[in-house]
Amino acid sequence: MAEPETMKGFHSLVTVSIVLEKLFEILPHPKPEVEECGLSEALNRVLAEDLVCPFDVPQFDRSAVDGYAIKAVDTISSSPTNPLEFRVVGKVIAGSKPGEIGEVIRGESALIFTGAPMPSGTDSVVMVEHCDRIDGVVRIRHQVHPLQNVSRKGEDFRENETMITAGTILKPWHISAIASVGRSIIGVRRKLHIGVLSTGSEIVEPGGILRLGQVANSTKPLLLAFINQRGCKEIDLGTVPDNLDDISASIAKSWQECDIILTTGGSSVGEKDLVFKAISNISGSTSVAHGVRIRPGRPTGVSVLNGKPVFTLSGFPVAAMTAFQALIAPTISYLLNAEEELVPWVTGVLTRRISNETGNRSYVRVRVFSGANGLEVDPLILTGSGLISTLTKSNGLLVLNESLEGYDEGEKVEVMLTGNISTRRPPDEILSSVNSFFPGGSRS
Amino acid sequence: MAEPETMKGFHSLVTVSIVLEKLFEILPHPKPEVEECGLSEALNRVLAEDLVCPFDVPQFDRSAVDGYAIKAVDTISSSPTNPLEFRVVGKVIAGSKPGEIGEVIRGESALIFTGAPMPSGTDSVVMVEHCDRIDGVVRIRHQVHPLQNVSRKGEDFRENETMITAGTILKPWHISAIASVGRSIIGVRRKLHIGVLSTGSEIVEPGGILRLGQVANSTKPLLLAFINQRGCKEIDLGTVPDNLDDISASIAKSWQECDIILTTGGSSVGEKDLVFKAISNISGSTSVAHGVRIRPGRPTGVSVLNGKPVFTLSGFPVAAMTAFQALIAPTISYLLNAEEELVPWVTGVLTRRISNETGNRSYVRVRVFSGANGLEVDPLILTGSGLISTLTKSNGLLVLNESLEGYDEGEKVEVMLTGNISTRRPPDEILSSVNSFFPGGSRS
Repeated sequence: MAEPETMKGFHSLVTVSIVLEKLFEILPHPKPEVEECGLSEALNRVLAEDLVCPFDVPQFDRSAVDGYAIKAVDTISSSPTNPLEFRVVGKVIAGSKPGEIGEVIRGESALIFTGAPMPSGTDSVVMVEHCDRIDGVVRIRHQVHPLQNVSRKGEDFRENETMITAGTILKPWHISAIASVGRSIIGVRRKLHIGVLSTGSEIVEPGGILRLGQVANSTKPLLLAFINQRGCKEIDLGTVPDNLDDISASIAKSWQECDIILTTGGSSVGEKDLVFKAISNISGSTSVAHGVRIRPGRPTGVSVLNGKPVFTLSGFPVAAMTAFQALIAPTISYLLNAEEELVPWVTGVLTRRISNETGNRSYVRVRVFSGANGLEVDPLILTGSGLISTLTKSNGLLVLNESLEGYDEGEKVEVMLTGNISTRRPPDEILSSVNSFFPGGSRS
Repeated sequence: MAEPETMKGFHSLVTVSIVLEKLFEILPHPKPEVEECGLSEALNRVLAEDLVCPFDVPQFDRSAVDGYAIKAVDTISSSPTNPLEFRVVGKVIAGSKPGEIGEVIRGESALIFTGAPMPSGTDSVVMVEHCDRIDGVVRIRHQVHPLQNVSRKGEDFRENETMITAGTILKPWHISAIASVGRSIIGVRRKLHIGVLSTGSEIVEPGGILRLGQVANSTKPLLLAFINQRGCKEIDLGTVPDNLDDISASIAKSWQECDIILTTGGSSVGEKDLVFKAISNISGSTSVAHGVRIRPGRPTGVSVLNGKPVFTLSGFPVAAMTAFQALIAPTISYLLNAEEELVPWVTGVLTRRISNETGNRSYVRVRVFSGANGLEVDPLILTGSGLISTLTKSNGLLVLNESLEGYDEGEKVEVMLTGNISTRRPPDEILSSVNSFFPGGSRS
């Protein structure tokens, strides 16, 4: 019995940047269709076209406070000990038409409320707290600069200014800006549909009954949540056994409803690792890479099927996650023509040396805590890519780039935060409980 | 005509921590009901009770790689130049029952696949890349440690271990952990319902026609988006004119369907600022604070109405946002018994001096960019709390706490990131276009 052909190692491992370069070269890059979206649905959607301001915002000079509208030059030298007096010739409330009261001249002022249009002849507002009103007269205790407490016409956005550029992922303040020009509908990119198919005869779907030897599927729920978090529509394509025909048939049936397909499990080069082969067997498929220089996540494969990217991921949750971050998130941004999603980073001091196999991008799970010397970064010792607990017990990922041999104890490192920073050193059992059982090794 | 009573300044401004302390003392703190939730709906929900692990995960020792299961001690001294030979006595695939093949003894090994149970008599796996198979024999080119490439029973989570604590906001890896113990349903806190009522006779709802002098409502959409982002259900309570009875009636009608009520506009102490008074007029209402030491956001009011918090916010979007961050977000966490949502922070060097009025918490909008000396933080000069553009053009908030007089140029500061870091210095017009018009002043 000869060694099965498929049990050799990966012939050539490719770096993340080369994989993405090759992938984006092949992808047709059709932007997803633009669809209309109400403001209440717009959070985290990708703006499809530049939003150009249709008119000045504010549309007229208006008061930013409650007080007395006045010409600033007339207040020079007024002070608490020497207040100046002005006749109050009118009152302007928010919603009034500009020019509703007549010209305010020297020695005069008008009572004005926040948001109300500035009367002509005035250029500033004295806050009500700095005034004393006695019948038809106001005493002003502080001088003001020209334009003080005034929101100028166009101060917020000017007519024809680009308020938000295409590709922006809409946050609450963007939605507010859109509303400020009276828009209630906006053009956004259709959500990408991302399907996830699990493979593995031993895999049981969440809620199913686990017989001895079987394993609950924890990687598909992880990926579906990441897809959802990234603003895409997740499609659960189920789980199929380790069987070439079943895998091919599932993907052939699903690719049309998906913009991207992910698979979990069977992504390596073992006898049972049929997924990459199953995809190669489908007509219209082009292989981009099989074996990527990320740790964990090495067995990841990338293909293009009828113009759509297919990522064959490890069945191990942590390995699938690193592949999502390294490859799938940038592909989503590329297809949507969108900016990258904001990722929180912090800088801290490493409590222990860590090493990297140069040429690989390594994702080390760490615990960031607020120590005596500011933020400290404790690498978790247990690192198995099948251990979801390394994610629930860590609060950050330290990414070691391809060129690095590692970091020394005491070096400052940047960490991608995945949870809140603890205020105290993590308990030792978190860091070392499994250490004694697992002195290294080469899991991917 | 005497000065209207309501046009005096705030009598006493209260700090954020005192407001929250007083509020939480009065609030009955009934935790919202627990509801069941499927895994696909669980992202960002608040776990209601500790999740205790029902069995060891993994449930049995299993291989983490494809390779040959063996007793580690038997591999001592094997090397590429001196490979050791073992008889291959069986094959174990993922999904096999533990013990399906018999005891593996000295001089023997078994072909094993990722996820498959370790045969008895073996304690480690040699990766397939380090082996040469010739018929019934495998030559092992590398020695292994005991337990190398093995996932131990209970290594990820142990039976009865708390996997996730109550109050955790569920992220993808938590969902994966829940799935790993076969759960498909989880108990989470019901979403808080947060209503937003806008007030102001000049305010026009998004999509409505703007007559001259009127202003589009940009603050309510901002708050609704923040509520949504914070994992709560937003309820749009519409806009009412500046009229005591209309405001009271709207709130009296809405409070039952809401867990928290927010209002925008009319929150100050001006003649038109009726909202706080309107709430005081409703029976069952207790005033907590009117006037908070945050800049912008000073006119914020806080009441409790029949056990529910009511926040009367400024009509200016930036002021409403700071009040949301300072007061409403912590109140949401308190009511849900939840951890705080993760906020991204970065550290950078300030390019210009900024000052704070001590006793106040100030939110300065800044532009963080990657400069010659690492991250640099450029405070925006335009600061009007009505200017939503200060949020769309900034990418961070620098919070100056009550005890600070300010920061000097060149000081290191921590910034809450609200957008991606630019790789170059922001163009001058962003920072100074409005500066010439707006030399300071005291907007809140």
